[in-house]
Amino acid sequence: MNAMSTSTDAGQERKAPGRPRNAQADEAILDAVLALISDGQSAAAVSIEAVAARAGVGKATIYRRWPNKEALIADAVRAMKGPLPELAGQSVREDLIALIQANRTPRAQRYGKVTACLLPDLIKDDELARMHQAVIEPRREVMREVLRRGVATGELRADLDVEMTALMLSAPSMIQSMLRLQHLVPDEGFAEKLVDAVLRGAVAS
Amino acid sequence: MNAMSTSTDAGQERKAPGRPRNAQADEAILDAVLALISDGQSAAAVSIEAVAARAGVGKATIYRRWPNKEALIADAVRAMKGPLPELAGQSVREDLIALIQANRTPRAQRYGKVTACLLPDLIKDDELARMHQAVIEPRREVMREVLRRGVATGELRADLDVEMTALMLSAPSMIQSMLRLQHLVPDEGFAEKLVDAVLRGAVAS
Repeated sequence: MNAMSTSTDAGQERKAPGRPRNAQADEAILDAVLALISDGQSAAAVSIEAVAARAGVGKATIYRRWPNKEALIADAVRAMKGPLPELAGQSVREDLIALIQANRTPRAQRYGKVTACLLPDLIKDDELARMHQAVIEPRREVMREVLRRGVATGELRADLDVEMTALMLSAPSMIQSMLRLQHLVPDEGFAEKLVDAVLRGAVAS
Repeated sequence: MNAMSTSTDAGQERKAPGRPRNAQADEAILDAVLALISDGQSAAAVSIEAVAARAGVGKATIYRRWPNKEALIADAVRAMKGPLPELAGQSVREDLIALIQANRTPRAQRYGKVTACLLPDLIKDDELARMHQAVIEPRREVMREVLRRGVATGELRADLDVEMTALMLSAPSMIQSMLRLQHLVPDEGFAEKLVDAVLRGAVAS
């Protein structure tokens, strides 16, 4: 723990030379939250003190920006997801592959690890679960839009169960990574193989 | 905590009247492990003391049967999975639905909750992860066998990606339950809808 982490005087802190500016401090704080959670700390166990110490900022810097720990964790989870992926919008297959690949970047893998570490909390804490769903929802909606577009253009079947198909496209990647099943379903070509399996179906034509 | 939980004399304990016999004690012990984990205790935080207290047995009763905590947790996870489901062996569709429904019983839901609570440990602890995979593997093999049988009979496509299809059939149920997505994909008819989506595929025929 350094001198900064024990400072509680916001004004003084801002003036001190060599200290991170707001955006950098925010990033360091959010990063510290994610690091603590993926180290195995439960949401309940994460403390503002520990976050401040790990980020190298004073507690006041955190409290100036976030009213409480729950809001801080929500922002950390949101920040990690990054921007929504851009889609070519030509072929449904290509767009679905792009969406699944966006869930398998190193950043996404880290997100998956944090989600896995938050699962015991997500099960118990309704507020946290709602927050997590709010983070996921815009991405799920992008996938739904691709599927609906496919139905509209006639590429996909008219009676497609859009919600179940979205789950079939997102769940395998999460479970493969969380349960470490790469020895069964390798990372190589994962997105293409999954999308093709979902599109073509299993029955013999 | 009762008197039993502090007893360390195995012989004395066995003779005492009114104490559970071995099978009952075993069940109480395994149940206590699962209860502690689904209450949100990490595998690291679960102690033999806490298990003994919750099960109402002495620590010696636990140590007589399990060499260490890891072996105890492994047995608890294994015990919860219960017997492999029996399959009619007629139609691939019916057997797959039966397998998915077997993953959605109240017992299976509890297993899913324990797995979710163990995920932070499964990610960090290679030994625990291997143990968990060993518990899952016989069930995964049953699903593979159904799929391979379908390929052999010509019901399923000859170039089926068996491993990916098994993941597509098992992962959605886990994620729907872990992330509490019942408002998006309801429990009602889940197994049938998933199996039909996997079998028929998404592309318009």
